[in-house]
This record gives sequence, structure tokens and C-alpha cells, in this order.
Amino acid sequence: MTIRIGIFGYGNLGRGVENAIKQNPDTQLVAVFTRRDPQSLTIKSDVPVVSADKVADWQDKIDVMILCGGSATDLPKQTPELAKLFNVIDSFDTHAKIPEHFEAVDSAAKASGKLGLISIGWDPGLFSLNRLYANAILPNGKDYTFWGKGVSQGHSDAVRRIEGVKNAKQYTIPVPEALEKVRAGLDPELTTRQKHLRECFVVAKEGADKAEIETAIKTMPNYFADYDTIVHFIDEETFNRDHSGIAHGGFVIRSGKTGANLENKHIIEYSLKLDSNPEFTASALVAYARAAVRLNKEGKVGCMTAFDVAPAYLSPKSGAELRKELL
Amino acid sequence: MTIRIGIFGYGNLGRGVENAIKQNPDTQLVAVFTRRDPQSLTIKSDVPVVSADKVADWQDKIDVMILCGGSATDLPKQTPELAKLFNVIDSFDTHAKIPEHFEAVDSAAKASGKLGLISIGWDPGLFSLNRLYANAILPNGKDYTFWGKGVSQGHSDAVRRIEGVKNAKQYTIPVPEALEKVRAGLDPELTTRQKHLRECFVVAKEGADKAEIETAIKTMPNYFADYDTIVHFIDEETFNRDHSGIAHGGFVIRSGKTGANLENKHIIEYSLKLDSNPEFTASALVAYARAAVRLNKEGKVGCMTAFDVAPAYLSPKSGAELRKELL
Repeated sequence: MTIRIGIFGYGNLGRGVENAIKQNPDTQLVAVFTRRDPQSLTIKSDVPVVSADKVADWQDKIDVMILCGGSATDLPKQTPELAKLFNVIDSFDTHAKIPEHFEAVDSAAKASGKLGLISIGWDPGLFSLNRLYANAILPNGKDYTFWGKGVSQGHSDAVRRIEGVKNAKQYTIPVPEALEKVRAGLDPELTTRQKHLRECFVVAKEGADKAEIETAIKTMPNYFADYDTIVHFIDEETFNRDHSGIAHGGFVIRSGKTGANLENKHIIEYSLKLDSNPEFTASALVAYARAAVRLNKEGKVGCMTAFDVAPAYLSPKSGAELRKELL
Repeated sequence: MTIRIGIFGYGNLGRGVENAIKQNPDTQLVAVFTRRDPQSLTIKSDVPVVSADKVADWQDKIDVMILCGGSATDLPKQTPELAKLFNVIDSFDTHAKIPEHFEAVDSAAKASGKLGLISIGWDPGLFSLNRLYANAILPNGKDYTFWGKGVSQGHSDAVRRIEGVKNAKQYTIPVPEALEKVRAGLDPELTTRQKHLRECFVVAKEGADKAEIETAIKTMPNYFADYDTIVHFIDEETFNRDHSGIAHGGFVIRSGKTGANLENKHIIEYSLKLDSNPEFTASALVAYARAAVRLNKEGKVGCMTAFDVAPAYLSPKSGAELRKELL
């Protein structure tokens, strides 16, 4: 069975999904949907680019729609809306609003008999899974999540909005000493400042006051004030050469104790080192798209997250192959 | 709902399960079953110790039986046999014989309307899960599993069988350079020798020829001949003081590529550092015992592995709690 996929939204994530589909021979891209003028969009695959308002015409041609919009304003509207027509999957990542988003997708998908899989990616997603597995197995323990080293888009944007800044990139970096203490099973209590560093590479506009920019960054509430922040001023050429990547990653660690007197310590660590944040998220979306279609064929409807999907559904291999090759 | 658990077999693993049950307030130990004389067994919990041949009397009092025997001869017989009476769960770890074991448990459990969960633990188990997730998300990549640093019971036994050896312990150790190359995304081809070191601590009998023992170890086929092996002779006091632990652990790493021209590299790493191998396995068994009971209540029968269990079933928390707290 070939899984027929639609991509809804064609930014970095949509392009990543397009690439990931090519790596999965049992999946096939059917069409790309955009709110822009379809004529204005050049895609790499030989499939139609369709205006978002025509999406209902594709209901019989698509097994699952992968939504590639943003969590702030796109997905809260689009995922429930499209779940009326398709099995849908998104990477909704506003942690605090997941319960609300879940409910909206759940009622839409239940009404249409479709399946919606939300918050797929790495955090939420694979990191969440690892928190869940580790918590279930070691109920007596402590969780740590570190992000980075990687580019934070939100923080980079915040620096770019400061007067005198031409361009900027912000890296979130786990504090090595904190990571080592956690790995050693010392169960440290860590403040925000003790967990992550923030490092900024800034191209200043000509004549801008660099000292003022640096102060504006370091004292910015929520974004930087609670962290140790390092600011580097660099020229545009260096910026373009060294800081155009979108790498990210991080660590999920649980440190737990077992034994009659809790005398035995165990450390479970999961980490990701990703050259491209959106492409990795896209790869997770395609694997879960396979799961969504299978689950819906089995009669499952409504909203699910990665927590509700048995791992075998993600793989193109049969149960017998998986037991033989990967168990 | 309290999950009523029976322990079948009371060695290191059975004692680990007994401890793990105490950490999970929704689980309760009901009885310990043994093939020894029940009178001869002292357990820590205030529950009956029952002769294995009376197990059928307990069918209505136990929701799930956790089998704690060995994979060589106990589990291939016991798991299918007990699946006629109970939901069962085991840590069967003879990788090559998993398909056969699966079939035996599957037909027994289907006939009785029970659920059997096999090969639960860390390898097979959590390591397998991580291989599956990582393979599904990065189809274009390479898998690496490293074991250790940890005690290999089988290799320790092999050394103890050599003439002149009074006691011995063998540690399997990942070669640090190999691990670093894999983490750096260099995708090395590694021979057996390049992946793991073997380190032996040996107490020789009085008058034994140590050089002969060392040669016998290092040239032993299958066990040591293909590895770089380090042999230390130590006295009994040092042995008892420093080498009585049963620590283990290891690393599962997948290195994969994405992008139109496979230009982006991603590293997924999962690792465990365990003070007590049997206690950690026991903790996994108890979490999956919860899942087995829930799945059977939903009507699932036959054999399953960790691949077939949606993560949410492992946790005592509700779906809404999990989405709020861990997603």
C-alpha cells in the first residue's frame, strides 16, 4: 500500500517533508497546498501546487495531510479545520496550549471519522516519549531536559528587533557542568541560569552603539535577563559564512533509584544532535503519517499524540520483520 | 484499580520485581511462586510463597504474572504454559529465538484469551524501541549498539570454568574511540575488536599458573578470541570489595542523513547507566505489567512485544495528565 500524502504549507518544514517522503518508498507526495498564489511557488517534486481554498477537492486523493504551518496562529485553526476532511498530522509545539489544541482536533476528527496526530517532532515528540518511558520505568527519580546547542528562532528574532541590529543569531547551549552533574547522578537543583547559556552573534548597523545593543540584549526580560548571555559582534560576511545553519538538539535525562533502600542509581539519557531542526521534525512527521493512516484504517478516530501510538506503526516493516531484525 | 501481580521465580530478577512493585502504588504483590520448597524461601513482602505446581489455584487472584526465570530453559516452557492461565510478561533475551518464543506464547494466549508480553527489559526492550524509533524516522542511516561498561554473566562464568580459577568477573567495555567516531557522525565500519574491550578480574587458586590462565582466557573462541582482553589477577579480598556489583548499561546510536542531497546529518543517541541490571529490568517489567493488564481489559489477546504497546499504557497517569505534564 502506498501512503498518499499532502503537504499543507511550504516553508522550511514543508520542504523537509518533501525530502523525507523521497526516503520512504511506501509514501508518495500527491500535492502541495499553499495560501500563496500557487503560480508563485516552485517546488522540487513533480506534483500540483494547489491553492489552500481548493483543498476539499482532494479528499479522495490523499490519505493523510501533513500540516507544516506555525504553532502561533496557523495550526490552532488549520489542524481542526482540515481534520474535517483528512487524517491530519502536525508539529504543534506550544506546550501550554496542547490540551486545548487536542480537544479541538479531537472533536473535529471524531465527527469526520478521521484521525489527527498532534505535536509530533522532537520536543514535543521524541523528547516527550523519552520522558514518559523513563518516568514509567523509574517512578522514583528526577527529570532533566536540556536544549542545544542550537539555534533559537524566537531569541534570534528578539535580538534582531533591537535598534541598531542588522542581523543576529542566538544559540542556546547547555551548561557543560550542569550536564555532567546530572549524568553523574548527583540530582542537582538547577536554576534557569545554571542550565543554559545564551550566545548571540550580532551584525550591527553602521554607526550603531555596540555597548548599548549588548546591554539591551543582556537585560531583555524573559528572553535573556535570567541567563548568562555572551554577545559577539561580527561582520556580515562572517555571519553569512558561519551562522546560516539551523542545527539544534538536546538531552533528556532521568536519574532514578531502585532497591529495597533505594541503593541503586540508574541514568537514562536520550540525546539528539541535528544538523537541520526542520528536516528532522519533517522526518518524524512522515513516519507518524504512516502510523496515522494505519490506525485510521483500523478504525481509530479522534486526536492522538505520540504517547498513543505503538512504535510498530511507525515502521514500514511487518511485526515479524521487526521482531527478527530490531528486537 | 490496583493491579494484582504474581512473581514466578525468586532470584535476582524476582527480588527486583518485589522492590519495583513497592515503588508503584497502583500495583500490589499477591504471591511469589517457586519450584523450590516454599518453606525454604524467605521473601521481604508479607505475601504467601506458593509452590509452582499450585499456580492454577491463583487464577482469579492475579491480574498478571511476571516471569523471572532464565531465557535458556525456564522461559521457553514457562511463559507459554502460564499464558494458559494468566496474562504473562517475561524478559526473554535470546535474540535469535524470539520469533519462535513469540509464536508459542501467541497461540497459548490466544487460546486462553490472555495477553503475553515478551522480551521486556533493556536489550531486548528499551534498546529495541530506540532502534525502531530511530530507524523509522531516519530510514537512511546506520545503527550502532554498544554494551557496557558492565558485567557479563556468561563471560564471567566462562572464565570461572578455567582450571586454576577460583573466582572471576568479566566487564564488557565499549571502546571509547569507536564511540566517539560514531557520535561524530563518521559512520565507521567497526569490527568486533574495534567495538568492545573485555576486562577480566581473576582470583587464582593457590599454586595455579597465572600465565596459563591468562592464555586460556585470551584464546577462548567466541568468548574472548575476537576481542582485546585485559586480565588482572587480584586477591579474594579485593575481588569481594570491588567486584561484587551487577552494573551494566550501553548505548544505541543511529546516525542518519536527510535533505535533497543528504547534506544534513543527525545523531540519535540513547544510553543507560545502571547500578543494577536485574533491578532495572524488573522496573521495566512492572511498568509493562500495567500495560499488559490494561490491554487485556480492552480485549487484546495473544503475544506482543514492546513494539506493540503504545507508551501511554505504561504510565499510571491519564492521557490528559500525560499531555499536560510530559508532552
